[in-house]
Amino acid sequence: MSELRRDPITGRTVIIAPERLTGARLWRPAGVIGGGLCPFCEGQEHLAGGEILAWRPGGEPNAPGWSVRVVPNRLPALRVEGSYAEPMSGLFQTLGGLGAHEVIIESPRHDAEWAHMSAEEVRLVLWAWRERMRDLRRDVRLRTFLLVKNVGADAGATLDHPHSQLLALPFVPLHLGDGLAAARVREEQSGRCVFCAVVDDELSSDRRVVSSDDDTVAISAFAARVPFETWILPRRHLAAFDDECDDCLRAIAERVRDTVRRLHVALNGPPYSVLLHTAPVGESGASYHWHLEILPRLAPVGGLAWDGGIHINPVSPEESTRALRRAVVP
Amino acid sequence: MSELRRDPITGRTVIIAPERLTGARLWRPAGVIGGGLCPFCEGQEHLAGGEILAWRPGGEPNAPGWSVRVVPNRLPALRVEGSYAEPMSGLFQTLGGLGAHEVIIESPRHDAEWAHMSAEEVRLVLWAWRERMRDLRRDVRLRTFLLVKNVGADAGATLDHPHSQLLALPFVPLHLGDGLAAARVREEQSGRCVFCAVVDDELSSDRRVVSSDDDTVAISAFAARVPFETWILPRRHLAAFDDECDDCLRAIAERVRDTVRRLHVALNGPPYSVLLHTAPVGESGASYHWHLEILPRLAPVGGLAWDGGIHINPVSPEESTRALRRAVVP
Repeated sequence: MSELRRDPITGRTVIIAPERLTGARLWRPAGVIGGGLCPFCEGQEHLAGGEILAWRPGGEPNAPGWSVRVVPNRLPALRVEGSYAEPMSGLFQTLGGLGAHEVIIESPRHDAEWAHMSAEEVRLVLWAWRERMRDLRRDVRLRTFLLVKNVGADAGATLDHPHSQLLALPFVPLHLGDGLAAARVREEQSGRCVFCAVVDDELSSDRRVVSSDDDTVAISAFAARVPFETWILPRRHLAAFDDECDDCLRAIAERVRDTVRRLHVALNGPPYSVLLHTAPVGESGASYHWHLEILPRLAPVGGLAWDGGIHINPVSPEESTRALRRAVVP
Repeated sequence: MSELRRDPITGRTVIIAPERLTGARLWRPAGVIGGGLCPFCEGQEHLAGGEILAWRPGGEPNAPGWSVRVVPNRLPALRVEGSYAEPMSGLFQTLGGLGAHEVIIESPRHDAEWAHMSAEEVRLVLWAWRERMRDLRRDVRLRTFLLVKNVGADAGATLDHPHSQLLALPFVPLHLGDGLAAARVREEQSGRCVFCAVVDDELSSDRRVVSSDDDTVAISAFAARVPFETWILPRRHLAAFDDECDDCLRAIAERVRDTVRRLHVALNGPPYSVLLHTAPVGESGASYHWHLEILPRLAPVGGLAWDGGIHINPVSPEESTRALRRAVVP
């Protein structure tokens, strides 16, 4: 069984998941990418496990005919059957293995990618993220959603069929808690959401805006950690992604697709990760503002950056903004 | 010129260093590793820049005959000629580019590696780290030392000649500040250094001790983020590495060498990073306890772990302890 463990010094929580270890997994799974029969392809639904959610015009569950499909992770890091308890004291704290770990299969096509999908196809992916969060948030034990999409082996993907992963945790992890606390302090100081202030300032200075419309904006992060780190934010204040409306998802999908296409052109199809940052479950009133961080993964993570220490980025955000603005999609 | 930038939301500081960008650098520098004339090899001292420090029995500076040599980074992320100022307010804060960025060339031999070096050779590396810190700490503007060694392209190394990097910063970065604050809180709660408590507890339970002697201990981290994450700590309380004495360096070098050799045997010569965590400059009395974290880099960093979020480790620290204890060096 997996277990959550808390570092006795920093308080950082990790998931120790021996179930996820298979012989080949300890090493870089180069051979796994695209090799063999893909469990995420249409027609091979039986290989991926029973679907939790799907978008399909009709027909039977777990059969062809879907556009997006959500299944349990085959080797879940956490399970809803697990337990969770915050220990009161002690150096070495294990907290159980409660949570959820699901996979969003984003397309029936093996070689689909966001840069070439339609805005409607991307919208269905965002729809699946939101719907799964709305379902899981009814479980009062779950506190945080982490959503990640890794594209390419260099970004940590072990399958190249387009997919994303949703992890639901029974606690607020340190990095999110710190982000929330920082945003709250800044809101108390200035009287408004710091994300809203950043969006307004970026739009009016126009120094790092890649693209925008009435509802969304894509910017090169002011303190970008890697070349071409790009954030997508809703212009309207909203703490939690799962509170987004249908029309909003449509606008976000268009902004996401446009941004990924620009990155694809500017960087020649780079590996990348997408991270969703959203307020903890049930904290819609938190001083937070959900957003997506798109991180091209052009080089391996060196030791300095590895533990969150210091990132050295050789491309200024202003330069990446210029390059992305020029990156017109044919 | 490089500049330090602070993220308007999290307060995280990054180094934007356009000087470090060369055409090939945006992409994984696979061709750089070991290709061409190595600037760190004996006989090619003129390619690496004038030495700041060297261990040599005699002879001229910047000529053959040395065991360890320290030079400025050819593309420094920060410079002592830079400026630094903490701005008082504003969303988008740039803080100048003050600091130091040096390279420790750990051996005249291109194919040397810690796993095959003698304890005396490893000691000279640690000696160079300490001596450079002792020299740089006289510059009252510098607050933090970050020391990292990356081995192998998958660990972010761009040269395979054995080397490490010393970065001196004019501020305390967020992750170290958080670690210090957490250690201080725990010390206030229990009346003693939390690192000392961990060392004592690990030694008495003997569950995660890889090896130890009177002065040092190597343990599998209780909340290891990656398989075989191993920490080396001095058993005696000491906040700052640069306060270590000569005899202590000898004991640490032996523990480091033994640990790296065990990892080499158990994991078949893995890529790895070594991070030195030490108290800020001039804070010898801080609630901290310097240590080394050795991180095998067996798989690319996925998006979930990338931003310090959540690490999923498929090898329990107890299992890696057993494997490392068995990994007897021939």
